[in-house]
Amino acid sequence: MRYDLYYWPTIQGRGEFVRLALEEAGAAYVDVCRRGDSGVSAMLKMMAATTGTPSFAPPFLKSGKLVIGQTANILFYLGGRHGLAPATESGRLWLHQLQLTIADLVAEVHDTHHPIGVSLYYEDQKSAAKQRSKEFWAERAPKYLGYFERVLAASGAAFVNGRKVSTVDLSLFQVVDGLRYAFPKRMAKFERKIPKLIALHDKVAERPNIAAYLASDRRIPFNEDGIFRHYKALDR
Amino acid sequence: MRYDLYYWPTIQGRGEFVRLALEEAGAAYVDVCRRGDSGVSAMLKMMAATTGTPSFAPPFLKSGKLVIGQTANILFYLGGRHGLAPATESGRLWLHQLQLTIADLVAEVHDTHHPIGVSLYYEDQKSAAKQRSKEFWAERAPKYLGYFERVLAASGAAFVNGRKVSTVDLSLFQVVDGLRYAFPKRMAKFERKIPKLIALHDKVAERPNIAAYLASDRRIPFNEDGIFRHYKALDR
Repeated sequence: MRYDLYYWPTIQGRGEFVRLALEEAGAAYVDVCRRGDSGVSAMLKMMAATTGTPSFAPPFLKSGKLVIGQTANILFYLGGRHGLAPATESGRLWLHQLQLTIADLVAEVHDTHHPIGVSLYYEDQKSAAKQRSKEFWAERAPKYLGYFERVLAASGAAFVNGRKVSTVDLSLFQVVDGLRYAFPKRMAKFERKIPKLIALHDKVAERPNIAAYLASDRRIPFNEDGIFRHYKALDR
Repeated sequence: MRYDLYYWPTIQGRGEFVRLALEEAGAAYVDVCRRGDSGVSAMLKMMAATTGTPSFAPPFLKSGKLVIGQTANILFYLGGRHGLAPATESGRLWLHQLQLTIADLVAEVHDTHHPIGVSLYYEDQKSAAKQRSKEFWAERAPKYLGYFERVLAASGAAFVNGRKVSTVDLSLFQVVDGLRYAFPKRMAKFERKIPKLIALHDKVAERPNIAAYLASDRRIPFNEDGIFRHYKALDR
């Protein structure tokens, strides 16, 4: 069965966490909005729907009659269908807990460049963004990344659940990749503290389906409209 | 079976969304940290664990051998066990999607008073907090609350899923209650735009288990350490 993914066509953003899961699974999917403006119109129309399960924001995924919103919810669904999550209830709850913690981290990364609000330009909140980025790297990044490093140490293998890759591992790859893009100087200094996360990143990047995806034009390059943005002033 | 809830003892915070579900369900639970300092020590020790399923942050819930973290994940679990969620997969995914959208809203409410970072005092980020609160009420609150108002209109009944209360309805009660506490002036002006949400709030407050809970000392009063904080400077 084919999935339809609805997400903004010019950024990785939160949609990328879903794309990585679909690619790893080798699932048939259409990235609807990348087919042209009619895709974006269709997406906005679905979000404005007064029946069904409209999303507050993209990404959302159409799977048969289901339309599923919220990134972590989509990954919960896909993980169960494509062997990217454990089969037991306890295992699925734990994986989802980690996925939701990644969602929190991603929201905080976004706020490093937009601490005041999404309707204002970065340039109009640059001073607050500098403060928030400083705080993020002093307090939050070490706490979050240290947490995942500890989870990997406890797993005793390459991935959070052992030797089998999960949606969370794919998402952690994206977090490391994104932080490297957005904060190259800070990450270069910080990476020695998270060797297991870096090894996970490299291991995910080498997986055949992911490697093929990253080399394709389906992978949108990082840019300054997404979550992970590179601004020199924030990377000191 | 008795649940053990681990959360900070002096605030409603994110723990309150779990407390409301447990209270509505009439579930037996211990609010561990409210039993004294040894509870907080136990909580911190569990968060630092190198085995099992340690949480990045409270709340987390112990249910038999399971230890479940992340508010929405806990509610997903409790909803399924206590009839506070639909039984079908599609119904559960939709409810969880709404729950995760509430989690996003709650994080944005928190950032109205802490836009720069949690390790700094409000007083040290007051100017940015004023800007963020203004932005929140100009853009974000109307968008989020308008979305839930639309979901309630589509449901055609008192609650998001029809006539049966769910974890999401309990959480929406808390959102309205919290916004009234934190932003009384702004909410007084805004409430006429969200009549269905206000009606839902009142209906939840009247439910016997919830009414008893709200009148008890188990309900911690709102204060300026939680998510919903009242600062006059932000409520104009």
